[in-house]
Amino acid sequence: MENIVELIQHKRDGGELPAGDIEALIAGYMSGEVADYQMSAWLMAAFLRGLTLAETLALTGAMIASGDTLDLSGLGRRVVDKHSTGGVGDKVSLVLGPLVASCGAVFGKMSGRSLGHTGGTVDKLESIPGFRTGLEVDHFVAQLREVGVCIAGQTVNLAPADGRLYALRDVTATIDSNPLTAASIMSKKIAGGAQAVVLDIKVGRGAFFTNMGQARGVAHLMEEIGRAHGMEVVSVMTAMEQPLGHAVGNSLEVLEAVEALAGRGPADLAAVVVELAANLLALSDLGWDRERSREEAGRRLSGGEALPRFRRWVEAQGGDASFIDDPGRLPLAPHRLKITAPADGYVSAIDALAAGKAAFRLGAGRRRKGDAVNHGVGLVLHAKVGDRVGKGEAIASVYAGNTEAAGRAAGEVAAAYELAPEPVPAPPVIIG
Amino acid sequence: MENIVELIQHKRDGGELPAGDIEALIAGYMSGEVADYQMSAWLMAAFLRGLTLAETLALTGAMIASGDTLDLSGLGRRVVDKHSTGGVGDKVSLVLGPLVASCGAVFGKMSGRSLGHTGGTVDKLESIPGFRTGLEVDHFVAQLREVGVCIAGQTVNLAPADGRLYALRDVTATIDSNPLTAASIMSKKIAGGAQAVVLDIKVGRGAFFTNMGQARGVAHLMEEIGRAHGMEVVSVMTAMEQPLGHAVGNSLEVLEAVEALAGRGPADLAAVVVELAANLLALSDLGWDRERSREEAGRRLSGGEALPRFRRWVEAQGGDASFIDDPGRLPLAPHRLKITAPADGYVSAIDALAAGKAAFRLGAGRRRKGDAVNHGVGLVLHAKVGDRVGKGEAIASVYAGNTEAAGRAAGEVAAAYELAPEPVPAPPVIIG
Repeated sequence: MENIVELIQHKRDGGELPAGDIEALIAGYMSGEVADYQMSAWLMAAFLRGLTLAETLALTGAMIASGDTLDLSGLGRRVVDKHSTGGVGDKVSLVLGPLVASCGAVFGKMSGRSLGHTGGTVDKLESIPGFRTGLEVDHFVAQLREVGVCIAGQTVNLAPADGRLYALRDVTATIDSNPLTAASIMSKKIAGGAQAVVLDIKVGRGAFFTNMGQARGVAHLMEEIGRAHGMEVVSVMTAMEQPLGHAVGNSLEVLEAVEALAGRGPADLAAVVVELAANLLALSDLGWDRERSREEAGRRLSGGEALPRFRRWVEAQGGDASFIDDPGRLPLAPHRLKITAPADGYVSAIDALAAGKAAFRLGAGRRRKGDAVNHGVGLVLHAKVGDRVGKGEAIASVYAGNTEAAGRAAGEVAAAYELAPEPVPAPPVIIG
Repeated sequence: MENIVELIQHKRDGGELPAGDIEALIAGYMSGEVADYQMSAWLMAAFLRGLTLAETLALTGAMIASGDTLDLSGLGRRVVDKHSTGGVGDKVSLVLGPLVASCGAVFGKMSGRSLGHTGGTVDKLESIPGFRTGLEVDHFVAQLREVGVCIAGQTVNLAPADGRLYALRDVTATIDSNPLTAASIMSKKIAGGAQAVVLDIKVGRGAFFTNMGQARGVAHLMEEIGRAHGMEVVSVMTAMEQPLGHAVGNSLEVLEAVEALAGRGPADLAAVVVELAANLLALSDLGWDRERSREEAGRRLSGGEALPRFRRWVEAQGGDASFIDDPGRLPLAPHRLKITAPADGYVSAIDALAAGKAAFRLGAGRRRKGDAVNHGVGLVLHAKVGDRVGKGEAIASVYAGNTEAAGRAAGEVAAAYELAPEPVPAPPVIIG
């Protein structure tokens, strides 16, 4: 690429790059003609100067074009997908997928392996013995047809430029940019072939977005990108100040997801699942309006009607469904400690980021691509914000691989809790 | 370096980095802990957010600390140096060095191999058969004592961080920054051990700086950096719209320098040399004021009194001085073409950048470190801005390695000339 320096310079000086230049930049980066140090200079210029909507669309398109794209139109059904910007205790997809499938919609998701504090959806599913996420496309499509729900790892090469760019942004302080973030998320979603996506945009100290303004900006951009690609996109903002639900950690979250599918899940998790399901069902080809979608989702979730669909799903991907019938059999880490309340009072905060980091240090997440996650470790937060606790009562438990890790995590989790003497209202979970 | 991402982020967000952070950044870059792509992201952030004077001083200091420093205080003389920001036809050092030495001052210069359109000072000197620029420090110091003038290549490792940073800036569109430029130039000068420096800041379309405002900004910064290191720094702005003098190319410029030292050089070259010499002599330990310095320099230059000193200098560095006695013997490229005026008129412009590029394509400069330069190729501009020319009269000549290159260069040089029907004044050469 002859003119890469001019191209960086143009963005550096605040100019708008034509789509062809952005395509050449990404193609050059993937071919090795554009060096990492040139891309990172461009990314910093883009971070500080911004990208116009046209540039953001071109970047998204170029990242989609860098790899495979899935065409699910042969299915004859409208495939809906959900994307979360990531939070602590986020097991929503495990509940949401079978719930919307049980309503008759088709929920298909290609999910990467997360580098977050705790495992990604694929890691959580792999806690179930036998569960396979490395599926061929044929399997993915057939399962969508037969079971109505499938979550696969990225066995096809969706938007590989995004993966490389994200890794570079991560080490060059260029993550926190609305257009770069929107293009990153949407390139993978669009390449994955779903026709409609609901975005669960988590906002709070345990989330990628810590303020609503930024979250709204990215949501708006993602909707615009979806529109340009004929994809319907709806954003829902949900709270991520404290972890979602009680469980943080792979097997522990599967266990909680089964509870939720049985109609016995925590209220905050159920609220998020129903809100997202209402939007997904309304975007699906069922012809339901939002009201009916919400009503059906709520009724089926609380009635435990989607649990059999989860069981079928697990079997379709090779998982041992007996663990769903008796999730208490899922292997959990042996070293357990309870954290007790130091005083009578009300839980006024649980720092989601601190809880996520504690789970990460227990081994629930991965630092580098290729690292193994420990499925059995994690936390259970027995008391959440607004709950009344008595002195000495267990407010949380840690599951660790050894006593030293258990002790450290217990200290970290205890520090993540704040108690107040006066009652504290349970915070809203759907915030926009 | 644990916190490199935070450090990039701090500059990205417009913060000021403490000196310790900048030192750690440069040391980490040299040790390999900080990757090229992280440094380039930082450079782009610094480019767009700027650096404070304190940051610029810290960067300069860190680059000096990355390599060797020369201590010339044992000489017992005040060593003066001159630095040019680079122009086309700039053979000033070849004339200036022996001129100030002939006045009794000590002129010492460590000069890098240029990546510019035409060779650097070291390349020009190496046109003289036998001339060696790879000198040991002992030789450098002894020659300063005995001859009063020495220009050596960078045989010691002066500010190697600057070399690496400059190469990175060159390919990431981060060259054109005042603080980065000032730190780059001054780190090498200060490491080189001179106690006073005159900066020849060239401004115009053939120069690094194309506008006076930017040149003044960098000059001011360089004076501040010098002050912080106990080095006296004086800046002179000189014009670089058209090439300086008539010759562009290594041997051709040596030839012109000898002519100038014999008192027969072009007026614009002599004007720059005398202006710089006046400043250098006033900064030296001779105790002359500016007026006397200017008077002595002018008289000696026009009287040819510095030519014997040039001869001694050449001999001291192993060069064959018979080429100085008869510079017409310097080998020149065999394929020569004359460019003639297409009409009667006055030369109104000669695009220095276009002339420099033409010389570069003839082989006078180098694209990459380690490339050889062709000493014999280049251009002679017989007519300069303001000169009256008659139709068919030779206005320029090219010296090329083959006929094809000669033809192409002739076309390029012809295109660099502009003629006007009405008289045009010769432009000023000292502009600030």
